[in-house]
Amino acid sequence: MENNQTKAANDNRRKGLKRNEPLKTAGQKKALPPASAIKTTFAPRPKRESRKTPVKIIPLGGLNEIGKNMTVIECCNDIFIIDCGLAFPDTEMPGVDIVIPDFTYIERNRDKVRGVVLTHGHEDHIGGLAYLLKKVNVPVYGTKLTLGLVDGKLKEHGLSGKVKLIVTAPRKTVKMGCMAVEFIKVNHSIPDAVGMAIHTPAGVIVHTGDFKVDYSPINGGIIDLTRFGELGSKGVLALMADSTNAERPGYTQSERKVGESFEKLFTKAEGKRIIIATFSSNIHRIQQIVDCAERYGRKVAVFGRSMINVITTAIELGYLRVPKGIIIDIDMMNRYDSSQIVLITTGSQGEPMSALTRMAMNDHKKVNITPMDFIIISATPIPGNEKFVTKVVNELMKSGASVVYEAMYEVHVSGHACQEELKLIQALTKPKFFIPVHGEYKHLKKHAELALELGMPKENIIIGEIGNVIETDGNKMSIVSQVPAGRVLVDGLGVGDVGSIVLRDRKHLAQDGLIIVVVGIDKATNSIVSGPDIISRGFVYVRESEELIDSAKAVMEHTLDSCSIQDFREWNSIKTRMRDALSDYIYEKTKRSPMILPIIMEV
Amino acid sequence: MENNQTKAANDNRRKGLKRNEPLKTAGQKKALPPASAIKTTFAPRPKRESRKTPVKIIPLGGLNEIGKNMTVIECCNDIFIIDCGLAFPDTEMPGVDIVIPDFTYIERNRDKVRGVVLTHGHEDHIGGLAYLLKKVNVPVYGTKLTLGLVDGKLKEHGLSGKVKLIVTAPRKTVKMGCMAVEFIKVNHSIPDAVGMAIHTPAGVIVHTGDFKVDYSPINGGIIDLTRFGELGSKGVLALMADSTNAERPGYTQSERKVGESFEKLFTKAEGKRIIIATFSSNIHRIQQIVDCAERYGRKVAVFGRSMINVITTAIELGYLRVPKGIIIDIDMMNRYDSSQIVLITTGSQGEPMSALTRMAMNDHKKVNITPMDFIIISATPIPGNEKFVTKVVNELMKSGASVVYEAMYEVHVSGHACQEELKLIQALTKPKFFIPVHGEYKHLKKHAELALELGMPKENIIIGEIGNVIETDGNKMSIVSQVPAGRVLVDGLGVGDVGSIVLRDRKHLAQDGLIIVVVGIDKATNSIVSGPDIISRGFVYVRESEELIDSAKAVMEHTLDSCSIQDFREWNSIKTRMRDALSDYIYEKTKRSPMILPIIMEV
Repeated sequence: MENNQTKAANDNRRKGLKRNEPLKTAGQKKALPPASAIKTTFAPRPKRESRKTPVKIIPLGGLNEIGKNMTVIECCNDIFIIDCGLAFPDTEMPGVDIVIPDFTYIERNRDKVRGVVLTHGHEDHIGGLAYLLKKVNVPVYGTKLTLGLVDGKLKEHGLSGKVKLIVTAPRKTVKMGCMAVEFIKVNHSIPDAVGMAIHTPAGVIVHTGDFKVDYSPINGGIIDLTRFGELGSKGVLALMADSTNAERPGYTQSERKVGESFEKLFTKAEGKRIIIATFSSNIHRIQQIVDCAERYGRKVAVFGRSMINVITTAIELGYLRVPKGIIIDIDMMNRYDSSQIVLITTGSQGEPMSALTRMAMNDHKKVNITPMDFIIISATPIPGNEKFVTKVVNELMKSGASVVYEAMYEVHVSGHACQEELKLIQALTKPKFFIPVHGEYKHLKKHAELALELGMPKENIIIGEIGNVIETDGNKMSIVSQVPAGRVLVDGLGVGDVGSIVLRDRKHLAQDGLIIVVVGIDKATNSIVSGPDIISRGFVYVRESEELIDSAKAVMEHTLDSCSIQDFREWNSIKTRMRDALSDYIYEKTKRSPMILPIIMEV
Repeated sequence: MENNQTKAANDNRRKGLKRNEPLKTAGQKKALPPASAIKTTFAPRPKRESRKTPVKIIPLGGLNEIGKNMTVIECCNDIFIIDCGLAFPDTEMPGVDIVIPDFTYIERNRDKVRGVVLTHGHEDHIGGLAYLLKKVNVPVYGTKLTLGLVDGKLKEHGLSGKVKLIVTAPRKTVKMGCMAVEFIKVNHSIPDAVGMAIHTPAGVIVHTGDFKVDYSPINGGIIDLTRFGELGSKGVLALMADSTNAERPGYTQSERKVGESFEKLFTKAEGKRIIIATFSSNIHRIQQIVDCAERYGRKVAVFGRSMINVITTAIELGYLRVPKGIIIDIDMMNRYDSSQIVLITTGSQGEPMSALTRMAMNDHKKVNITPMDFIIISATPIPGNEKFVTKVVNELMKSGASVVYEAMYEVHVSGHACQEELKLIQALTKPKFFIPVHGEYKHLKKHAELALELGMPKENIIIGEIGNVIETDGNKMSIVSQVPAGRVLVDGLGVGDVGSIVLRDRKHLAQDGLIIVVVGIDKATNSIVSGPDIISRGFVYVRESEELIDSAKAVMEHTLDSCSIQDFREWNSIKTRMRDALSDYIYEKTKRSPMILPIIMEV
């Protein structure tokens, strides 16, 4: 829909891109009008050189949290979005399937949105995309594998073919209204990951995406340090960089290290069946497993829906090299000896429904764990999953299997940069301003401290929050306002219908269960015609607590008897009295506070 | 209650203790009748030398789990119990306060029980004791500090003065019928911890309790390696040893290491207020904080109920040396400058109601966190608590405070032996049989592998389960039978009234909430006189889902309309039809499965 606004944006775009010159880094600090003034006045500016068209950076997810990464970049009438991820619910969100960002700001500015650019295909970067596209259908730009994985998700949501997916590649640039996004190769635990240089009228903003520096990657080449350096020497206005491992000193190991460990373990496993659980998206790791299998004359069988999906996509798109005949159907496994088989499976996080967990619990139709199994969990537990993983490890061991897990034998390396790599990116890009992203507060803070150590002035570092509008005109950068941001809970088909009240009730019900008191009252005579009856769930085992339930019933009868005719005109008053009386009685007897639901039926 | 049984036991006791000679470790494997025969026949034994009175080891907790450590030792008519701990509930047990062992076997054999011996005063070793003593009131033996802490618990349970507490000490021995328990000093993260040599007619069983080897402990001396060695050279029938850290190579660091870190951090904190969170029972660590405070001219204020309780007990009993005037009342804090204060607090695990968490959430009456605070979390998160601790760290940092946590600066060391220490104990005691205890399966298994590496025959190692009856006559050791064992859930005042059905309901309610359908039916006419009404909790936010609720009501009306008179004679049939119809409808519309409770009121 081309309209006047878009035309204006196009004009701006041309102007903006022209202005993408190297930044002057000194002598340009001038007294500026307050940020609010910049936003509301359109008076001609006094000095064009020192003041540029302001750009806004609005994080809608990924700050002070792990996951649901999403950032809005806005300039004049143009908006584009970097990533649209999901987060997984914590224990405070029972029953919730996934958490996605609040899209209110995007919906309110739908006409300005030029597209979504994706850094890579992990759930915390693409998992919210389908929900966004249902509200605002805009083009999506990403590398081939990333869009391959997105396409799978769109199919699940019935959006396949309805969204414009535009394949891009490192060193390519796409226009976003008055801005342009240049993709830069980075290393990560999924192939085809990119960072971005965002060319704006105010200057260049570099966003690393999730990254690490891997000098010996499995394929796809080393992170494009050269380009980061070139941008740095031309002048980078701001750097937004991945803070996930900002607490960890040193360097993250190369993915190749894991291959070396697999090599040793394949030797160690000798005649046993090998089962390896890992993240389905870690195609480099799967490549190394396949390579090992080939060298050791083993066939590969693949378990778990997401593992099958991702491997299929990766083979189709040429990201996984699988020698002919090496992958076998699950049902063909019986034709081979233990020593001739490798199983690749999901479940490295001990997810209750995953293939590995079902194998561990003797609940898998095709795989029975025995002492002839050699199992490798090639992952570390994500915080919150430790106990699930431990449970799976214990159960696998009880079946007599050998299990290699966690830090043992270096069967996992991180996909995120540690402190020395973070310093390298800072040193290469030499940004004027720094915004640490992707992490909880402690990670952002640590990352900010690293930048300080490297000599960045404290006032040039912004630790933001989601919804902050961070504005820069090339000279200054500050938080100028706030837009709606938060978490939207997805439970089944419901998006956003589970909120704080529903969660509060779920937690209350989980803690102490509930007691329902039902009573039938004759409207005409104000007399009780039925009940009070007591029903409980999740409170006590009723058959062994008859006495308690009977006495609770007596308390309710007494309460109803003491209600006056006045009370009977006002059901809510009776309900409150019933609830209070029963609540007090139950607490006194049990020191528990179940939810109490009085129900009055008018007859 | 002295009776014939006890007299017989006393006779046995004398015989038994005499027989406590060194074990013959070779040439004594003879064909024995099956274990079942040993238990049920009383025929005179053919060779007294090679066959001894059998002893049973019955773990009732602490195997294949962390916590609720409890072991029964039984010989002839005598039983005694080592420890009686609690475990903390996991996410599968919503609303549960604590988990204690199943005492059925003890209750069934109450007349045989001679007492409880305690290794140390941690909750996972004494936290279930009050519940046990309410059922079977027997004497409790332990070191001074352990019993001091037990006494505090008994007071909470109204048992103070009603239980015989007998103070013992390392190198002392107490008789338990035909057996005797000798206490042996060990190092651990609480003072006054002991292991045990259990002298039985079948031989000596060594139980390490929780232990580590600390060559430079804060006070109380080094673990009594000499005694373990003496026992070893005389002959140890079986070793039961702490497996908590069996996965960790090397040695556990000395507690003194933490003191060195404190020293550095007190210097680093300069003018700031220091706040240290740690386990209240780690009195050695508290001693080091107090010592540092003294050296740096700071006063100490104590926060958190359990911290205050334990410190009070420890000072009273002489386990904590506190210079006069160094501890100040919380309300006196304002009289001092930040640089003159150290706060010691609970909350090192991020427990939601703890003092540190309340400080972090700006919810503490007396302490307001500012950039002038230097906070040390002197603990590592127990598995399952990682996210709680992270949340607290994030919030403290947001207030601008400096926070030292987890592995940073070595502010915590473990209280449990690592692999080299475990090998040392094996080498000193040279046991014939080995039973790894205190750990999940993966820990027990790893510990068993260590014993194998040291040359113990595989068949002499028993990885048991709770409830196993492990019997030994000095020659053989095997699992001969099973007694009731499991977990009993404590919720408020209720002990054991929350079982699997209640937990299942709580989890169901937490996942998707509930929908109640109430309908009033006239018994005489089989007609609906009221409703159907729909009430939901924890399902959807009703105000925004009126359409769904209305259509659900219509589904219920339709279901009731279609019920025949036959159905109306049988309420359960109507209820089932209502539940099925609504469940299907709701799942189709929302992909959720709330609990559905149809309630029919007969009028």
